[in-house]
Amino acid sequence: MQRNDLAAAVRLVFDERQLLHRPESYFRRGAFVPHPEQPERAVLLRDRLLRDGHLLTAPRDHGLAPILAVHDADYVSFLQTAWARWCAEFEGDRPAVPNYHTSRRRGRRPEGVVGQLGYHSTDTACPITAGTWEAIYWSAQSAIEGAECVLAGEPLVYALCRPPGHHAYLDSSSGFCFLNNAAIAARHLQQRYARVAILDVDTHAGQGTQDIFWQDGSVLYASMHLHPADYPPYFAGYGDEVGAEAGEGATMNVMLSKGADDTAILTALDALLAAVRRFEADAVVVSLGFDMAADDPLAEVAFSSGGFAEAARRIASLARPTLLVQEGGYLGPSLSENAATFLSAIETASPGKAP
Amino acid sequence: MQRNDLAAAVRLVFDERQLLHRPESYFRRGAFVPHPEQPERAVLLRDRLLRDGHLLTAPRDHGLAPILAVHDADYVSFLQTAWARWCAEFEGDRPAVPNYHTSRRRGRRPEGVVGQLGYHSTDTACPITAGTWEAIYWSAQSAIEGAECVLAGEPLVYALCRPPGHHAYLDSSSGFCFLNNAAIAARHLQQRYARVAILDVDTHAGQGTQDIFWQDGSVLYASMHLHPADYPPYFAGYGDEVGAEAGEGATMNVMLSKGADDTAILTALDALLAAVRRFEADAVVVSLGFDMAADDPLAEVAFSSGGFAEAARRIASLARPTLLVQEGGYLGPSLSENAATFLSAIETASPGKAP
Repeated sequence: MQRNDLAAAVRLVFDERQLLHRPESYFRRGAFVPHPEQPERAVLLRDRLLRDGHLLTAPRDHGLAPILAVHDADYVSFLQTAWARWCAEFEGDRPAVPNYHTSRRRGRRPEGVVGQLGYHSTDTACPITAGTWEAIYWSAQSAIEGAECVLAGEPLVYALCRPPGHHAYLDSSSGFCFLNNAAIAARHLQQRYARVAILDVDTHAGQGTQDIFWQDGSVLYASMHLHPADYPPYFAGYGDEVGAEAGEGATMNVMLSKGADDTAILTALDALLAAVRRFEADAVVVSLGFDMAADDPLAEVAFSSGGFAEAARRIASLARPTLLVQEGGYLGPSLSENAATFLSAIETASPGKAP
Repeated sequence: MQRNDLAAAVRLVFDERQLLHRPESYFRRGAFVPHPEQPERAVLLRDRLLRDGHLLTAPRDHGLAPILAVHDADYVSFLQTAWARWCAEFEGDRPAVPNYHTSRRRGRRPEGVVGQLGYHSTDTACPITAGTWEAIYWSAQSAIEGAECVLAGEPLVYALCRPPGHHAYLDSSSGFCFLNNAAIAARHLQQRYARVAILDVDTHAGQGTQDIFWQDGSVLYASMHLHPADYPPYFAGYGDEVGAEAGEGATMNVMLSKGADDTAILTALDALLAAVRRFEADAVVVSLGFDMAADDPLAEVAFSSGGFAEAARRIASLARPTLLVQEGGYLGPSLSENAATFLSAIETASPGKAP
């Protein structure tokens, strides 16, 4: 994995303020457990990739407009102010975590912070603390900066987004995610690329991204992930979900079985890649989770290091401008190594590069 | 409050198995707090009312059919089996509490118990423990038995339902409620009484009952409660919610301000009573909360003991067959006294009774 070719380095976009969201624990399955989405994830990834010679860029501040192109203004405004409002009521001695939610059928946005917290989240996995807004804002800015680089002609860019984004809905947080970085980047890319494909290889279905583009035929959402019948996000990501209205056919879910190995996962990936080609995508956003790794703390499938390298080469074969957006992948022993392997392999295999 | 007239006693329906649901604490506003919906509530009410000479009846077992006339079969089956399934996964060392919920827009029922728990609840306030199913089943049976007595010609019956019901939706628990006792009773009464009014005087909007009858013009849902903008149930119970389709105009919400006193509360009640009369209800179900009492632990309004008595007299003036169904009212000093006052006043004022 020695890199001598500095010219072939991948641009890595990251801002240290993304580390300011520090959830300690969360309420899960009836008990509090340590929160796996820790800032150390991003530190490990950054440091490993810098050691490999990839280039670090801090994002510029592109403001709220690209975020508001995806998310409801009420939701964004809530995220900006939630911590201060929560502290005004509860003295800041605990993170803001919802415990009331709307029904599936009806439910309107209340005025108080407790009710709005439930309105704007679907679970207890997204605690809001002092640094949360700053962290998620800069995570989104990293995605937008990455999209800007692609728009400027770079063929392959890696946005080290953390906190992740693919579970976030247009108006609510979900599954460690607040702002949907991949969705924001995809919309931003549409300034130049009319048809964008989001290829989601995280081990969890990105039901937030799917929901955002459900009726939108201009963005393909294609995901492989563990079958959600007994695994988060539970309520979406099933194989028969294909989008609706203008978006019918622009959502694709390939479900993996527990324990799926390299062969099964790469076969699923091939189905997604075929869909990206059929869609005639002009650009690709990869929702890049490393939590399919066999040793990931949340893993239920068993992707190997060689599997990640092969996946990278097959994605490179799409030969489209590509933005990698970091999603999941937790503090298991192979996290940063798998990222290094993936990045090296996709960069080497990208068109115009030496094999 | 001395009672010498045993013939004027009110029938009180209750089963001791309703005490088997014993939630210890719940996750609320970022922290665990003691759960206010304790079995002692029912014990206090029962013992006080027996002391007054009211008559205790245990419900017969009317089976699942009257429950399934309101609730989805999938939900009822989930409630029946949830504890055993939860224990099979988590060894029964903690109550079953959801932490994942569906989005407002889409979401399907998953297969595993953790996902189904989130699918079938909207909050963390409905922990399922070993005795939960038995307790909620018999609470519903008490409501059904009460309805049976009314169907058999009794003009006034009190179903001491606990756990309460009015927040429960057709397919999910919410706000301490699992099975919607008032809704089940109202449907059961429709065997004889085509038009039933549910008059909800609990301090919380009964958004579950409202949701169940939202498109159903044959049951009026009329409620007064604290404004939900910053108070549970937050997402429904606003003054402009009036039902839809065949149910348009058959939902009425009168919102009270914080600190509302007897005058304000009785004025709101008059508006509800006028609606019941306009609706030409053949029978009335009262969702009877005592949590408007100034000293109730959850109270934000200040109804007096005299206020409860006056409310009872005004409800009696409807002169319809009436089933009282216990809802909220928590372990404050005046709980059982307010119940005794209310029951005495409504019974005394009921048509055909001595003043």
